[in-house]
Amino acid sequence: MQVIPIMTDDTYNIYLQRKVLFSDQLLTLISSLAPNRNLIIVTDDNVNRLYAEKLCKHLKKIDKNCKIISFGHGEADKTLNTIEEIAEQLSANNYSRDLCVVGFGGGIATDIAGFIAATFCRGVSLIQIPTTLLAMVDASIGGKNGVNTRYGKNLIGTFYQPKAVIIDITVLQTLDKRALNNGIAEMFKHAAIFSDQYFDFLDENLERILDLDLEVLMTAIIKSCEIKRMIVQEDKYDVGVRNILNYGHTVGHALEMATEHELMHGEAVAYGMIAEAHMAKSLGHLKASDFMRICVAVAKTIHKDFQLTKEMVTICRQYLMNDKKTKNGRPRFVLLERIGKVFVNREEYCGEVPEEIISAALEYIQEERLC
Amino acid sequence: MQVIPIMTDDTYNIYLQRKVLFSDQLLTLISSLAPNRNLIIVTDDNVNRLYAEKLCKHLKKIDKNCKIISFGHGEADKTLNTIEEIAEQLSANNYSRDLCVVGFGGGIATDIAGFIAATFCRGVSLIQIPTTLLAMVDASIGGKNGVNTRYGKNLIGTFYQPKAVIIDITVLQTLDKRALNNGIAEMFKHAAIFSDQYFDFLDENLERILDLDLEVLMTAIIKSCEIKRMIVQEDKYDVGVRNILNYGHTVGHALEMATEHELMHGEAVAYGMIAEAHMAKSLGHLKASDFMRICVAVAKTIHKDFQLTKEMVTICRQYLMNDKKTKNGRPRFVLLERIGKVFVNREEYCGEVPEEIISAALEYIQEERLC
Repeated sequence: MQVIPIMTDDTYNIYLQRKVLFSDQLLTLISSLAPNRNLIIVTDDNVNRLYAEKLCKHLKKIDKNCKIISFGHGEADKTLNTIEEIAEQLSANNYSRDLCVVGFGGGIATDIAGFIAATFCRGVSLIQIPTTLLAMVDASIGGKNGVNTRYGKNLIGTFYQPKAVIIDITVLQTLDKRALNNGIAEMFKHAAIFSDQYFDFLDENLERILDLDLEVLMTAIIKSCEIKRMIVQEDKYDVGVRNILNYGHTVGHALEMATEHELMHGEAVAYGMIAEAHMAKSLGHLKASDFMRICVAVAKTIHKDFQLTKEMVTICRQYLMNDKKTKNGRPRFVLLERIGKVFVNREEYCGEVPEEIISAALEYIQEERLC
Repeated sequence: MQVIPIMTDDTYNIYLQRKVLFSDQLLTLISSLAPNRNLIIVTDDNVNRLYAEKLCKHLKKIDKNCKIISFGHGEADKTLNTIEEIAEQLSANNYSRDLCVVGFGGGIATDIAGFIAATFCRGVSLIQIPTTLLAMVDASIGGKNGVNTRYGKNLIGTFYQPKAVIIDITVLQTLDKRALNNGIAEMFKHAAIFSDQYFDFLDENLERILDLDLEVLMTAIIKSCEIKRMIVQEDKYDVGVRNILNYGHTVGHALEMATEHELMHGEAVAYGMIAEAHMAKSLGHLKASDFMRICVAVAKTIHKDFQLTKEMVTICRQYLMNDKKTKNGRPRFVLLERIGKVFVNREEYCGEVPEEIISAALEYIQEERLC
């Protein structure tokens, strides 16, 4: 078993292993991390159909009353309304603080499970078992959770650390290529902000990852987890260096809202990375050759049939104003200096960008036939 | 100015002073604690009508864009729905992380302000300015916040520390006797769990407090803040000794729900303290004479016209099951050993109680003409 420790106030481990999901090892892990806790699996309806019953049956070996609570699997379901419904189901079953929430699914499931664990009875135990590539390398690590409002993504949330993140890469076999690309986009982000070498590795091995070569996948997932670990350890509450993980996300989140989630998160972030690299190039921070490398590599992760319209870009501009990094009513963007390094100005890891440069970047991603 | 420091992970002060609310000192405090932050006053409609415009005008001297967001003042408004509405208003005004929420009002306002500050953009600055006796001595101190669900009080919430709690006791002059008694009940709780002497002080000075003798009030508020400070410093996350602050609250919260908030929080806790003292007496922990002292003193804080019905007590029993301290589906209660000391069993500060003893305690508060 691969173990990656995350050292924040409450140190915890990421455990990676093939076929750990229905193993005795899983039972040992959970019963040692959440002794005598009532277990509840919080999952989305997709994962529920595929695996949750089987996982629940397995977990009943350590908690005979283990139950499943599921909800819709779309971003539109990631709301305070869903949180209230889950909390009420928990109370209806007489659950209280002596609870361990097992977040089981993609990024939406781990976000909702995280928010429920952080707020139900002011906090209960949490174990995350991500089942998508996106959730494995990004959403389930670092303690961020959140729900959307009609003004934007993750505008309500907390920082809340799990007791463990348990990754079984064999479950990736049920994902289609689009869902895999959704995670690969975030892996390119890790590379773009932190490691030129890893960027090349991903670019060269893209086909193997999409073909589910488990060896290559494991290497890449570990690398992404390592990068994310280093960054969140430095800055648990996202007030400094952790900002760099938001590369591509100011534009990305706004595009998700503007396309009403027709774009998946990773795809929107892919567009966002290209747009924000375009801004960095316009500002003279990023070389044109690095910009092109990013464009070519990252565009491969975007769904081929999708067409970004002018109208979407117009709406996107409005949503930029509600980004969490906004300062004095002006949006801020993470700007690259080169592949593997973010431009830092007076210890600020994101910066304001003149209106016309934002416009040019958004025009670029709209007009160019990127994917 | 009286200053009481609370030493948790993020140390902060309680500042107490007469007429601090519209003073230059308030401006100095806020601008030093939340430099360059956009200020937003989160308040209920009652306080809004009385003071909020004036406070907003005053705060505009340090943030010319200072705004007020208000909501209904009842427990029925303390919901995730209100939280969503406030978050959307904040986004509509392009507020983001660079925000300082000023919680202004009674316990409901400080609870909602606390939850908003803890979760909007995953956390912004918070300054609490309580305006009721209850909020001054209890709700605004210790970092707990929460909203209700239909299953119970404060079932969704977080621990989130403010930058400061600022108390101006002169605002208490607008409170009626029932609202004052609502706070006095929680002060009796502090005394009952921690200080026999303070219990006598409160009992002897009850009339003076109700007559708003500011000297006596200040002494009592400081004493209550000191007791709460000592307890929350020991146990920030309410996993041990902090439980004793829940004396009267297992029954109290259930009664609030069962009476649909016809009972104010302090009144419900007063009934709860009598019921839980009755349990402690039945279990042989508490002497009959101490039980009677509690009954006589605490009953004075309950509104005279209120009649607890059999039906309310029946409904109350159901709500007991959803209390946050419930373990394995069984409610737990803080039990006194004597006035000033809680019974502790194997480091547990609250314990299960046999069904028939719970029933006898609830019958007692229903049948006796306490107030």
